[in-house]
Amino acid sequence: MSASCFDLPPDTGFGPENLPYGVFSTEPGGRRRVGVALGDWVIDLSRLDVPAVDALAAPSLNPLMARGPRTWAALRARLERLVCDPEICDAVGAHLIPLDRVTLHLPFEVADYVDFYSSQHHAENLGRMFRPDSAALTPNWKHLPIGYHGRAGTVAVSGTPVIRPSGQRQPAGGGPVFGPSQRLDLEAEVGFVVGVGSQQGTPVRVGDFAAHVFGVCLVNDWSARDLQSWEYVPLGPFLGKSFLTSVSPWVVPLDALGSARLTPPARDPQPLPYLRDDAEPWGLDLTLEVRLNGELLSCPPFREMYWTPAQQLAHLTVNGASLRTGDLFASGTVSGARRDQRGSLIELSWGGTEPIRLADGTTRTFLEDGDVVTLTASAPGPDGTRIGFGEVTGAVRSAP
Amino acid sequence: MSASCFDLPPDTGFGPENLPYGVFSTEPGGRRRVGVALGDWVIDLSRLDVPAVDALAAPSLNPLMARGPRTWAALRARLERLVCDPEICDAVGAHLIPLDRVTLHLPFEVADYVDFYSSQHHAENLGRMFRPDSAALTPNWKHLPIGYHGRAGTVAVSGTPVIRPSGQRQPAGGGPVFGPSQRLDLEAEVGFVVGVGSQQGTPVRVGDFAAHVFGVCLVNDWSARDLQSWEYVPLGPFLGKSFLTSVSPWVVPLDALGSARLTPPARDPQPLPYLRDDAEPWGLDLTLEVRLNGELLSCPPFREMYWTPAQQLAHLTVNGASLRTGDLFASGTVSGARRDQRGSLIELSWGGTEPIRLADGTTRTFLEDGDVVTLTASAPGPDGTRIGFGEVTGAVRSAP
Repeated sequence: MSASCFDLPPDTGFGPENLPYGVFSTEPGGRRRVGVALGDWVIDLSRLDVPAVDALAAPSLNPLMARGPRTWAALRARLERLVCDPEICDAVGAHLIPLDRVTLHLPFEVADYVDFYSSQHHAENLGRMFRPDSAALTPNWKHLPIGYHGRAGTVAVSGTPVIRPSGQRQPAGGGPVFGPSQRLDLEAEVGFVVGVGSQQGTPVRVGDFAAHVFGVCLVNDWSARDLQSWEYVPLGPFLGKSFLTSVSPWVVPLDALGSARLTPPARDPQPLPYLRDDAEPWGLDLTLEVRLNGELLSCPPFREMYWTPAQQLAHLTVNGASLRTGDLFASGTVSGARRDQRGSLIELSWGGTEPIRLADGTTRTFLEDGDVVTLTASAPGPDGTRIGFGEVTGAVRSAP
Repeated sequence: MSASCFDLPPDTGFGPENLPYGVFSTEPGGRRRVGVALGDWVIDLSRLDVPAVDALAAPSLNPLMARGPRTWAALRARLERLVCDPEICDAVGAHLIPLDRVTLHLPFEVADYVDFYSSQHHAENLGRMFRPDSAALTPNWKHLPIGYHGRAGTVAVSGTPVIRPSGQRQPAGGGPVFGPSQRLDLEAEVGFVVGVGSQQGTPVRVGDFAAHVFGVCLVNDWSARDLQSWEYVPLGPFLGKSFLTSVSPWVVPLDALGSARLTPPARDPQPLPYLRDDAEPWGLDLTLEVRLNGELLSCPPFREMYWTPAQQLAHLTVNGASLRTGDLFASGTVSGARRDQRGSLIELSWGGTEPIRLADGTTRTFLEDGDVVTLTASAPGPDGTRIGFGEVTGAVRSAP
């Protein structure tokens, strides 16, 4: 990788080794099209002479994602040259737009949304809190990546207001009551976006992960813990999650994460053959940051996730379920072993029993109206560079 | 309602009081467009002078559904005249195509798919089998319509092959094993299709049901009970359901069901105010029929459902979750109190312990390769007529 032709901030996560894709417009109601982030600019791809240019004038990444890995690689190779080769990078210079002058939109049309539960630390923490009389992990947890379907229609781009949901909760010892959630939480997650679909009846093997998955984004799976704990037995989370799921506006190509791949934690017991990943480990060395009103609360380490996204995809399809372009599957809350690595407030405040003290002197157990939550992340790039993921942020508004 | 101008079979459920919508084509790969069933014909709506005709040349009902109740009513009123008024019904005669000469397609693009669990008999039966050491109903069951999100991308039209899914199951006393499901089941359900979406943060009240819901179809929510029972704690059903959900090709307009509305069963305890439906009861007198290889197994009565679709919709959105055109929500398995009213094999064979004896001398606990399951239903129409729903059928194929 050469240096960019353009002056980039020294600490940028959007260097020429990243080139994440998004969808932007330059005026209200204006034309949405595909762009790539470079430093503090967005490159208007629809104006360049690049492969698949017809797909880049679309208002979502879906047409590009549907083309498949050969097109993705050809486009990426061309973009790397365009931003790094002094003989041709003038062609890009004319189509750089400052990021602060564009509006970023939901980058892809979400087909189905699946949320996994693949951090052992998170699952153990929640098991202890929700089911104190049972083992922290359910008997199936180390045999399969537990997951469930979420609401695709309420996946929204970073910046979408988080309207506090109302619903039923059950105060200790009484019947249920209705009202605004009193235990509104964040969940710091990593999302994987499917580009190439699959046929009904044909599972996607662990080794075929990169043939289907286009890229990676950040996900905040907002959760109303009081609604969730009352409703979730026996069919799982529903209204406690479905009011909003926020994603970052940038999708980092899988090809940008070569330097971030690592061997995931050892699995014990050995999983069933369709989940074995020794030949194709997809552990990823991402570190997330969770900020509340600008203050860093925790740094969840994705590298500690028990199940990798390649195993999640293999599991998701092993029953013959088909994939579509735009399917989003998220990792589940990323939490590490240490307290300052926990990816949700319910863990950080231990179910509300250990309030978090903030720099302004206030405390939090769960989110208050007006609170702003921002997730960021970075991963190692080639040659000591850093791959950034932008941010996913949201401000809590009071219940209507 | 007048009689149709056209000779219809005396027992047709597709009389002029029904006029269900579907999507058809007349040759392989041919143009898909909207039609209406009338007796043994389909009316090619895109050829008629009717309201919203531009939406009727679409390959799905979504554009028509998005127009809203006024357009639906205007189109329906015009169609009723076209098929019943002798002075103008020649205009229809030229555009009748025999049903056996068309291919019927998935009638709508599914946005989000939610499956409820609203038959008390079914929930109690499954509770007794899955959780024999607990109360049959979970504590929340009579306070809210329990539901969960299913996989929208694997909702398919009647006739789609049911490829036996593989996955993990846990034989008694051992670790999990992988292989084809040994407990493949059907679930007889009724589906409700959303036409008009809603804004994030704005719940849809019970009384606004008809402002959003376009119509009703039949749903077979195929289920792999062995996969489901191993995976479903704590986040609910996933691979046990996601391989396929079949829907009927005809969507019966809500306006065709006026004579089928009735008061639902009394609720005890009284639900929270947002679920009260005294002013707008949406009980429906549908009777389903479940057939295995042509033999009638049961007749589940929809009128006994504890929660109505209007309550389900109010619950689904009470947290502010938005609706989109094409959202499908299903009732959950419809089971009555009697054995011959149960809507799934796991109930009919009581978890496989009481095999069902078929007319050909064989027995069934769960589905075998080659089995064909067909669901039909009817409801009372005006003046002693009958509203039919067509059928949703599927043949089981062996695991690949």
